[in-house]
Amino acid sequence: MHRQVTDNLRTRRRRRIDPTCNNSTHSHSLQPKKLIRKLPAYQMLDESSLIQLEDQADWILDQIGIEIRNDEEALELFRNAGARVSEQRVKFEPGLARSLCQTAPSMFEMHGRDPRHTITIGGDYVVLTPSYGPPFVTDLDKGRRYATIVDFQNFIKLAYISPWLHHSGGTVCEPVDIAVNKRHLDMVYSHLRYSTKPFMGSVTAPERAQDSIEMARIVFGRNFMEQHCVIQGNINVNSPLVFDEVMTGALKAYSRANQGIVLSPFILGGAMGPVTQPALIAQAHAEAMVGIALSQLVRPGAPVVYGNFLTTLNLKTGAPTFGTPQAVLSTYAIGQLCRRLGLPLRCGGYLTAAKSVDGQAMQESIDSMNAGIMAGANYILHAAGWLEGGLTMGYEKFVIDLENCGALHSLLDGLTIDENNLAKQAYRQAGPGENFLGVPHTMENFKTANYMADLADTQSFEQWSEQGSLTIEQRANKHWKQMLAEYVMPPMDESINQRLIDFIQQKKQAVPDQWY
Amino acid sequence: MHRQVTDNLRTRRRRRIDPTCNNSTHSHSLQPKKLIRKLPAYQMLDESSLIQLEDQADWILDQIGIEIRNDEEALELFRNAGARVSEQRVKFEPGLARSLCQTAPSMFEMHGRDPRHTITIGGDYVVLTPSYGPPFVTDLDKGRRYATIVDFQNFIKLAYISPWLHHSGGTVCEPVDIAVNKRHLDMVYSHLRYSTKPFMGSVTAPERAQDSIEMARIVFGRNFMEQHCVIQGNINVNSPLVFDEVMTGALKAYSRANQGIVLSPFILGGAMGPVTQPALIAQAHAEAMVGIALSQLVRPGAPVVYGNFLTTLNLKTGAPTFGTPQAVLSTYAIGQLCRRLGLPLRCGGYLTAAKSVDGQAMQESIDSMNAGIMAGANYILHAAGWLEGGLTMGYEKFVIDLENCGALHSLLDGLTIDENNLAKQAYRQAGPGENFLGVPHTMENFKTANYMADLADTQSFEQWSEQGSLTIEQRANKHWKQMLAEYVMPPMDESINQRLIDFIQQKKQAVPDQWY
Repeated sequence: MHRQVTDNLRTRRRRRIDPTCNNSTHSHSLQPKKLIRKLPAYQMLDESSLIQLEDQADWILDQIGIEIRNDEEALELFRNAGARVSEQRVKFEPGLARSLCQTAPSMFEMHGRDPRHTITIGGDYVVLTPSYGPPFVTDLDKGRRYATIVDFQNFIKLAYISPWLHHSGGTVCEPVDIAVNKRHLDMVYSHLRYSTKPFMGSVTAPERAQDSIEMARIVFGRNFMEQHCVIQGNINVNSPLVFDEVMTGALKAYSRANQGIVLSPFILGGAMGPVTQPALIAQAHAEAMVGIALSQLVRPGAPVVYGNFLTTLNLKTGAPTFGTPQAVLSTYAIGQLCRRLGLPLRCGGYLTAAKSVDGQAMQESIDSMNAGIMAGANYILHAAGWLEGGLTMGYEKFVIDLENCGALHSLLDGLTIDENNLAKQAYRQAGPGENFLGVPHTMENFKTANYMADLADTQSFEQWSEQGSLTIEQRANKHWKQMLAEYVMPPMDESINQRLIDFIQQKKQAVPDQWY
Repeated sequence: MHRQVTDNLRTRRRRRIDPTCNNSTHSHSLQPKKLIRKLPAYQMLDESSLIQLEDQADWILDQIGIEIRNDEEALELFRNAGARVSEQRVKFEPGLARSLCQTAPSMFEMHGRDPRHTITIGGDYVVLTPSYGPPFVTDLDKGRRYATIVDFQNFIKLAYISPWLHHSGGTVCEPVDIAVNKRHLDMVYSHLRYSTKPFMGSVTAPERAQDSIEMARIVFGRNFMEQHCVIQGNINVNSPLVFDEVMTGALKAYSRANQGIVLSPFILGGAMGPVTQPALIAQAHAEAMVGIALSQLVRPGAPVVYGNFLTTLNLKTGAPTFGTPQAVLSTYAIGQLCRRLGLPLRCGGYLTAAKSVDGQAMQESIDSMNAGIMAGANYILHAAGWLEGGLTMGYEKFVIDLENCGALHSLLDGLTIDENNLAKQAYRQAGPGENFLGVPHTMENFKTANYMADLADTQSFEQWSEQGSLTIEQRANKHWKQMLAEYVMPPMDESINQRLIDFIQQKKQAVPDQWY
């Protein structure tokens, strides 16, 4: 029986937690906020429903199997672990894939260049990261256009100075002004140089993953990284039920170096899987287990995050939809399945199909994020900036999302019931019919009692009208510019900086540019 | 011990459920959708925390007490029930207020003029009602202005033809073109004439509550209403810890007639109670129990809804704020306290301080509604239209909220795990790497698998731009006009209609207009 999450958690090896990072070289005044969950996760399904879904995942792996394309090493690893391999199809006896995941840590640390930015992934910790992957950016001044490396660096800077993001992200947008086969070098450099938070490297080719790891080693040291995670690869499954050599190659590179992967099936119901959610949930669970199993076969104990990207399609337009009731229900279910495996859970963040930051954008975003938070997510990808189904990174959306990320810190802090918060003395002073504004308890607590959003307008209609009847999107326009103006680059040892620059130059000179 | 909700539910008297209403006179083609919760409510607090809050509520009632102003009858009822009454202050031994609530039904039916619109309040049922109380209305064509009786009737018509609202509401907006002391007559007439869904009557004076009940008796019959609930009064406590004679007078009128009340403490933390949430939650619980106790002393078994309106203040601007993390946490807690009393729970709906339907409006609205839904609400007031902290009813906001009300029907339907939804045959047909769009399972299920929102845009950026880059607020403008154009007035027996008109005329002629 592999179903008892408590047993799993007890017996699972915990990676050694080391609070110091010997490579950090700087100090600045930013005080990042840890996000620690005091609220219990939502339990939607009962035991028998969860077993049905687990049995279905086992059935898929046993009867249909997973295709591992063009990767003999991965096929050999699975064969030796007891899977049935026929050509590129790999099938697993019920329970096998789950048992191969058992060496993965339930919780691990991921080190920032500044040790104050070191994060814990798993357990009661929640990590918020920016959006990943958009080829476009947009803002109210210049509209939507292809992203450049300047945009890329801007979003790293915004994530760096926000107290509400714990991670610098990965491809925060695609810098399309740089050749496809070289842009990973500038992206990884930008994360390392402009931020000190943990980050993600390249996964678009195994050698680019390797370059990313090498650059991290220049900063953190090879020996340190043998024992400590500082970089992650964001591995999407080629759903349905396929891993190609690009994904397995990148996965193996990160896991072999004892660095992190975030393993996420990417399933739009009706396209990469059936249109009904229970099937999709089980399929995602099956795919995630196989990817995590591969990481553990490459290097037992390598840190992983159990991810998912499950959402719905509008089958009239063929477009993905977000924050829909079906996507929410799937997220609750996948959270429960992940907890039974005892692994850190990744969910999606503020996702939307909307093109501007209108009411649709925020309805979809909030419903999507709430689902992940209530499902028990430990790691939220796309927590800031996402628009247009992930095609566009929005400057205004980014800072509005940040403000909501701040609110999550208050939410997950839960309700503290103690003598001060029960305020008996305030009732003795104020009594029936009296206003509590003036009692000492209110004065003593009002600054800390409530989360205060800056961008949300609470003025009177008249004041709001006099100021131009601005929407929150319009108010946010000023905000991100202020944040960028306040950005101060963290220091870096100049010899390390030069080694990074030399590494990039050498790599760029070695091969011609590719633009496709 | 009064704490065992299961015992309460078992022993509590259930009102007789009668599926027919002998006064319905019409049939039209609208098929309302029942909203039945298959998702479990969220359990945030553990047993000991809940007991702390209940003990604090008992402490407030025992040590501070409630003021019942200018209502000798109510004071006498409490005195006879064992409370300690001194002048207008009423104090309760621990457990007394709770025990006085025990005759209230855990579940009851509320009859619509069309029996297809009869609803169940309590248990696994959820009832969505429009917003209540705004003196202003707004739309994109004419902007914000004082509401009139035409606006009032428009919102009744919109609520009537929507399949996603189960109740016609009460003061959906204030028709300020009619004298204060007479507008209740036109409001009640409009609910009865333009809709066939259950509704709320007046509470602004005991005699106006009585008029509302009399008008309902013209339509439903006095005898029928002795046994069946057809109208409710929305009773707000004069928090902190006060009931004035207007509220107790209206409460007694509805309860004496065996009609419904929704009893809601209205507390903005820092003003009508301490600024810390645990105190507010306990205070709200204490106030709600006292109001419900009074209803049961007037007439044991009278139907009640345990309500609350708990939210936060921005203590810089003094304005109420919505969908904040603290408001969400309070809602989860109050849901648990209410379940332990075994009563139907009312929560707030799509609430916001925003003036237009922008990103702020929908973030606050969705966070606020989600909290109520997850807290286990049976009855959602303000499920459509609310803007500007309840000062404004928005036409565009109304129809956007309706679409999200529709999504709640899918959400609360939960995840059905069965052979069809697990779709094994689809995997046998599609397999790894293949698109599921073409398999028979997708074709058979795609129409019912996902909730489809009409107003949410899922087109490409190019299509969206060509159509004018409209926000959802702009798209909604057309939608409510279409809905109003499609409205058909339900039939009513002409003699009943005439009796209503005569009643109103007689009442209006009896006293001069009051405009304040």
